[in-house]
Amino acid sequence: MNKLNIRKAEKKDAELILKFIRGLAEYEKLSGEVTADEEKIQGTLFTENPKAECIIGYAGEKPVAFAIFFHNYSTFLAKYGLYLEDLFVLPEERGQGYGTQMLRKLAQIAVERDCGRFEWSVLDWNKPAIDFYKALGAKPLNEWTTFRVDGKALKDLAGGK
Amino acid sequence: MNKLNIRKAEKKDAELILKFIRGLAEYEKLSGEVTADEEKIQGTLFTENPKAECIIGYAGEKPVAFAIFFHNYSTFLAKYGLYLEDLFVLPEERGQGYGTQMLRKLAQIAVERDCGRFEWSVLDWNKPAIDFYKALGAKPLNEWTTFRVDGKALKDLAGGK
Repeated sequence: MNKLNIRKAEKKDAELILKFIRGLAEYEKLSGEVTADEEKIQGTLFTENPKAECIIGYAGEKPVAFAIFFHNYSTFLAKYGLYLEDLFVLPEERGQGYGTQMLRKLAQIAVERDCGRFEWSVLDWNKPAIDFYKALGAKPLNEWTTFRVDGKALKDLAGGK
Repeated sequence: MNKLNIRKAEKKDAELILKFIRGLAEYEKLSGEVTADEEKIQGTLFTENPKAECIIGYAGEKPVAFAIFFHNYSTFLAKYGLYLEDLFVLPEERGQGYGTQMLRKLAQIAVERDCGRFEWSVLDWNKPAIDFYKALGAKPLNEWTTFRVDGKALKDLAGGK
């Protein structure tokens, strides 16, 4: 396993992060959904008290992986958890254990920050990923479904319609 | 519909919040899972830059509902979203539109803060809740499953085992 050097992203990395986001979207065949740009990345991840964070994994000097995460909350524990929103390893750099090292680093951050849980979501049809996560000790929360309101429905709900 | 007065919770509300948490756990028959206490609530929700927030709904002077939420993140949008972790209306105060008013308030906060999405999760068997959410314009993200690592598995992952 090649050793990754994993560092917290900085404001100057916005261009690199955008490249990763576009790479992820391309890989998922969802490029049309990307409206992120450097300014938006800087205005969300690199403000004074950002609520989401980014780490970048380097193989030597080459950035090969990135992850975006934030803290969620367990009401019953009154403790924060760590939620991994996205993890992406460049397609041409896979099979070298980089994904595992990124997950391990995130687990370390979770433990250091006294988080009760480390969570992420996966598409139901992605069996290789699911098998990999289970082998790492992760358990699926099968009985839960997330609901989303956005766009006009969100404005309508806010406006009392 | 009786009008709720919805206010941001303050540090002095920790005792009240704990009562709501215990009420929610009792209602879900999960009281054994609550390890929250006033100190933990104060140390997470009422620090300088808390990553989770609480609102309380009052019917007249009586607190009848609470909600805990935090900001999640959309990588493709480079925008924050609002995630509702828990919403609870006292069982004896239901059927008066309080839940809807709490959801509406959260949608307003999401819009005010320029969030791209407002999301929450529901147990798959809770059909009345699911029907209610759909009527509000929410859509289920049926194809996603959340994975969780906690306890010993989290420490093992962090430790490289």
